[in-house]
Amino acid sequence: MRKRVIVENVKPDINSGRYFIKRVINEAVDVEAAVLADGHDAIRASVQYKKASGRKWNEVFMTARGNDEWTASFTPTEKGFYEYRVIGWIDHLLNWHRGFLKKEAVGQYLSVELQEGEVLLRKTAANYPKKDQSDLLRYADLLGNTQAYKDAVAAVLTDEFAALVHQFPLKEFITESNTFKVRVERTKALFSTWYEFFPRSASQDPNRAGTFKDCEALIPRVAEMGFDVLYFPPIHPVGKLNRKGKNNAVTAEPGEPGSPWAIGSDEGGHKSVSPELGTMEDYENVIQLAKEHGIEIALDLAFQCAPDHPYVKEHPEWFIWRPDNTIMYAENPPKKYQDIVPLNFECDEWESLWEELKSVIIFWVEKGINIFRVDNPHTKPIPFWEWAIAEVHKQYPDVLFLSEAFTRPKIMASLAKAGFNQSYSYFTWRTSKHEMQEYLTELTRTESREFFRPNFWPNTPDILPYHLQGASSNTFVQRVLMAATLSSNYGLYGMAYEVMDNQGNTNGKEEYLDSEKYEVKHYNWNLRNRVTDAIAKINQVRKAHPALQSTWNIHFTGTDNDQLMSYVKIADGDIVWCIANFDANHTQAGFVEVPKDLLGIEGSVNLRLHDLLTGQYFQWNNDWNYVQLNPDYYPLHVLHVEFL
Amino acid sequence: MRKRVIVENVKPDINSGRYFIKRVINEAVDVEAAVLADGHDAIRASVQYKKASGRKWNEVFMTARGNDEWTASFTPTEKGFYEYRVIGWIDHLLNWHRGFLKKEAVGQYLSVELQEGEVLLRKTAANYPKKDQSDLLRYADLLGNTQAYKDAVAAVLTDEFAALVHQFPLKEFITESNTFKVRVERTKALFSTWYEFFPRSASQDPNRAGTFKDCEALIPRVAEMGFDVLYFPPIHPVGKLNRKGKNNAVTAEPGEPGSPWAIGSDEGGHKSVSPELGTMEDYENVIQLAKEHGIEIALDLAFQCAPDHPYVKEHPEWFIWRPDNTIMYAENPPKKYQDIVPLNFECDEWESLWEELKSVIIFWVEKGINIFRVDNPHTKPIPFWEWAIAEVHKQYPDVLFLSEAFTRPKIMASLAKAGFNQSYSYFTWRTSKHEMQEYLTELTRTESREFFRPNFWPNTPDILPYHLQGASSNTFVQRVLMAATLSSNYGLYGMAYEVMDNQGNTNGKEEYLDSEKYEVKHYNWNLRNRVTDAIAKINQVRKAHPALQSTWNIHFTGTDNDQLMSYVKIADGDIVWCIANFDANHTQAGFVEVPKDLLGIEGSVNLRLHDLLTGQYFQWNNDWNYVQLNPDYYPLHVLHVEFL
Repeated sequence: MRKRVIVENVKPDINSGRYFIKRVINEAVDVEAAVLADGHDAIRASVQYKKASGRKWNEVFMTARGNDEWTASFTPTEKGFYEYRVIGWIDHLLNWHRGFLKKEAVGQYLSVELQEGEVLLRKTAANYPKKDQSDLLRYADLLGNTQAYKDAVAAVLTDEFAALVHQFPLKEFITESNTFKVRVERTKALFSTWYEFFPRSASQDPNRAGTFKDCEALIPRVAEMGFDVLYFPPIHPVGKLNRKGKNNAVTAEPGEPGSPWAIGSDEGGHKSVSPELGTMEDYENVIQLAKEHGIEIALDLAFQCAPDHPYVKEHPEWFIWRPDNTIMYAENPPKKYQDIVPLNFECDEWESLWEELKSVIIFWVEKGINIFRVDNPHTKPIPFWEWAIAEVHKQYPDVLFLSEAFTRPKIMASLAKAGFNQSYSYFTWRTSKHEMQEYLTELTRTESREFFRPNFWPNTPDILPYHLQGASSNTFVQRVLMAATLSSNYGLYGMAYEVMDNQGNTNGKEEYLDSEKYEVKHYNWNLRNRVTDAIAKINQVRKAHPALQSTWNIHFTGTDNDQLMSYVKIADGDIVWCIANFDANHTQAGFVEVPKDLLGIEGSVNLRLHDLLTGQYFQWNNDWNYVQLNPDYYPLHVLHVEFL
Repeated sequence: MRKRVIVENVKPDINSGRYFIKRVINEAVDVEAAVLADGHDAIRASVQYKKASGRKWNEVFMTARGNDEWTASFTPTEKGFYEYRVIGWIDHLLNWHRGFLKKEAVGQYLSVELQEGEVLLRKTAANYPKKDQSDLLRYADLLGNTQAYKDAVAAVLTDEFAALVHQFPLKEFITESNTFKVRVERTKALFSTWYEFFPRSASQDPNRAGTFKDCEALIPRVAEMGFDVLYFPPIHPVGKLNRKGKNNAVTAEPGEPGSPWAIGSDEGGHKSVSPELGTMEDYENVIQLAKEHGIEIALDLAFQCAPDHPYVKEHPEWFIWRPDNTIMYAENPPKKYQDIVPLNFECDEWESLWEELKSVIIFWVEKGINIFRVDNPHTKPIPFWEWAIAEVHKQYPDVLFLSEAFTRPKIMASLAKAGFNQSYSYFTWRTSKHEMQEYLTELTRTESREFFRPNFWPNTPDILPYHLQGASSNTFVQRVLMAATLSSNYGLYGMAYEVMDNQGNTNGKEEYLDSEKYEVKHYNWNLRNRVTDAIAKINQVRKAHPALQSTWNIHFTGTDNDQLMSYVKIADGDIVWCIANFDANHTQAGFVEVPKDLLGIEGSVNLRLHDLLTGQYFQWNNDWNYVQLNPDYYPLHVLHVEFL
């Protein structure tokens, strides 16, 4: 009860410590808190942090920034969970020191104050290990020497004495905040470049569907293009019962391959590979070859079944059976999806179901998979994901989960809070400068930053957004360059993007005509064009520039043209400045503001900018500088900034 | 683990349930929460509430307002603590019903759905007491009758069936939020009108100081003026040692009375009354007489001591002793306050000290005091107040504590969170329309509303704000009318205000010259002038108009003149509309917006307004209407609104 200090409103915090925040290795945690007490006595506060498994707290003193708000930072250097908390206390030694200085300044006689100081210094020393006591005790002796009034007063006024008081606080009646957690992940959680293709479309022989062997042949190209994650839609046997045909037709014609997301047949389920793609060994070879090219294979985790999935017979208790003894298909009334039956996460046998699903993940991790793209996680219970991801991370902390939830904001946030390492985002639909800036600000400057790590995709097999339907190569180049420079995690549904497939489905939705979800495609895998050039170039730039390897460091600067968006990213002394032209059809020009505070420019501007896409150089000497972007050439400047 | 629903961000909430929110009897608690789950299944949510001492939860169904946010209200009707929480669940009965309606709308054949409905209705019925089951079972029978397909389908489509599904939810796997607390207080916590005078200045004989007997003579006047709380500065014996003189002189001349806040002498301490004012019985007579006039006497609680307070000898362990064996005076280096010694709340004997201070409060409660104005609570530990107030309220829930903390925002907030019923506010220094609107918005539209109940004082014995120094009666009338209409709790350091004492201290601070804190004053207690008229009138209006008995219901409307502030308050069908002229020297005129949404006006405006101060009537027929306020007459309109 004698704790006079109140510590509250500690940030970062998600739901009062209910969820952990996220960082990657060597990424700082900036902590703030309200720390206050009655009266005028001197308050001090610290952030304490440690590995969750460790016992010893490290400590960083906090700084008051006004309005009783305090801040400090720490940087986790290892993977796994860390804990942090804020402590505050009235520091009677510091309080005495401050009072002493004020009284001395007005010429008061301070002999009793010196005696008080002696007492406080000895009390303080007693709280520290022997090795730290000597300076404190030396000063205590001096202050206690009534023959040395002048020397003692002079000593209290020194910087050395102030530093000592700072270094060795007198902690009494400490108030501790709750303890918060941060999950520290491998660097790839924040910086990854994804490519997606359907293995069955990997064949370079137009007369047959692709196999894992064909995938192997494409890996060098994916690596050359600069990608480091290669994601395949589900590779499991495709259900034969109620299989969907081309363009989502209710019935498949003989020989049609069906949707790979209708998983399971007499050929196996979630722990099998489709024999049409090859053997498990073939798949493992793909994983291995990819690794040799610096690429990780991501597995699609779609926890749902075709009606002929082995689970249906082996574990009928995991499904919903209707009063007429038929199985419940997936539905969104009045629509019914007959090629899919949902798992019943609420069933009485939920524990065996959950364990089985966890075992699916572990199965693939043990085959060499370290990244999962989770299909529609928002149609399975969020508590399931929280449990499953935590369970997997206990054994395999390097595993990354990407949440493919294109749904309402709070659901997407909840999945991220539950533990997903990355999340698909609304980037796909942000098409104006205003909404793009607003969205990036929400992602990076609100609580979201602590748990929701976005991944920007210009397209997916499910989504050909309206602005890409009928679009020219200018738009394709523009969207991928924006994705790649705004977000350090980005991805492409690759070849469809590279060939600039812009044909929307006739249903008027944001879907591909003749969607690859329901048929095998044949591409010219030797394709080179403006789009592939832009992709390869920007991926190279991303690898060379730390500034583009984070999403959190974005800083928008002013422009006088609503079609021009200007953003600067800085990391480790590397400065990259992007200027995007949102108008895919016309050259746009205008003036762009130099963020002088951010760049630490006090006097006049003197910058050299190197366009990393075109190789051009610019010299800027004004607070606002002229730019002009012709989308037929490059709709973005990606400028490396040097001070002259 | 099978709980699929997530309930979070429940509001109102102060620091994740760490503190209770506050209401008075019959004041609603509007609860909101994010309630969400995976998939498309129907979600339902309720607010549950009960008296903290009770066992049975009451329940109000929540309504979805979009973005996964839900709301509902409940109204506590008794004093004391209530608890509330939010629960959410997937309602499979409702989900089935919604799906049924959609499928029926597109003409699907629904015989299996009817069977499913039967199962769900029987399952639901089993969760309710026998008396509530009959309708559910009747419908179950009908749906289960395969001979009655058409009747069964028709039944499911009825409003009655929908109402039944609403009324009897099928609750499974319920997610519960944390439980939150609300302290429900007597009405006076929200609606009170304070008057302050120094008993020693109550004498109508200029040759002697006032006594409790003189106070009795003044009570009828205070009642006539419309006040219902009468607050006296400390009535205890004033310290004789180091007593301060006139204008805070370091030494008092013989016969000077000293500051009443330097409490305690050989004549007694915090449980005594000053013999100069009379006896304990005299004081009790004042309390009794006041009660008969509808007035409660508020006691000043100043937990500090004069150096000759009996505690110093009896309990030296409660004070700080310096190395030279002298007592520590209150100080704010380099300043020292030699007429005051602080209690050491951190001392080893803190428990006996805290108990003693609690016993001081209980002592006066038992003498008939139910309201305490707490002097400088921010110089005593906040945890002490939290404990002391809770302890007193356990025995005496009607006791009100007003926090006199004029300090930094977070400290004031923390004291309010700790349990103070009312708090002095920054009103005293808000002098422009912009800052006044901003402040009221902060008080009433942010988290602050849940715990910080402001009390608006135009002046106090400590504060003669700069805008009252040298001010004319216009300003005095203006400030009191604003205080009385903006805030349902307001108060005056009365006679100094009524005589329009506008003489600032020569030290340039916001203090009175010849402050009553250090000397006896003699007033003409029969005074009547524009200020006293305005006070008496507005207090009468406040009593007659429920709209002015809350602070939370303020709604600002537009004006086209920055000197005119327009605000409307509504309660129980009573509408009061105030328009204030901030310019004390000139007539200001302009147009004022009718808040049509707030007033529920859909077509054209047709209002009659009755000025409750002047008796004038106005008729307004436009969306914006002309007003003109001459501060020499009344600087505010206080208009009662009637619809014609």
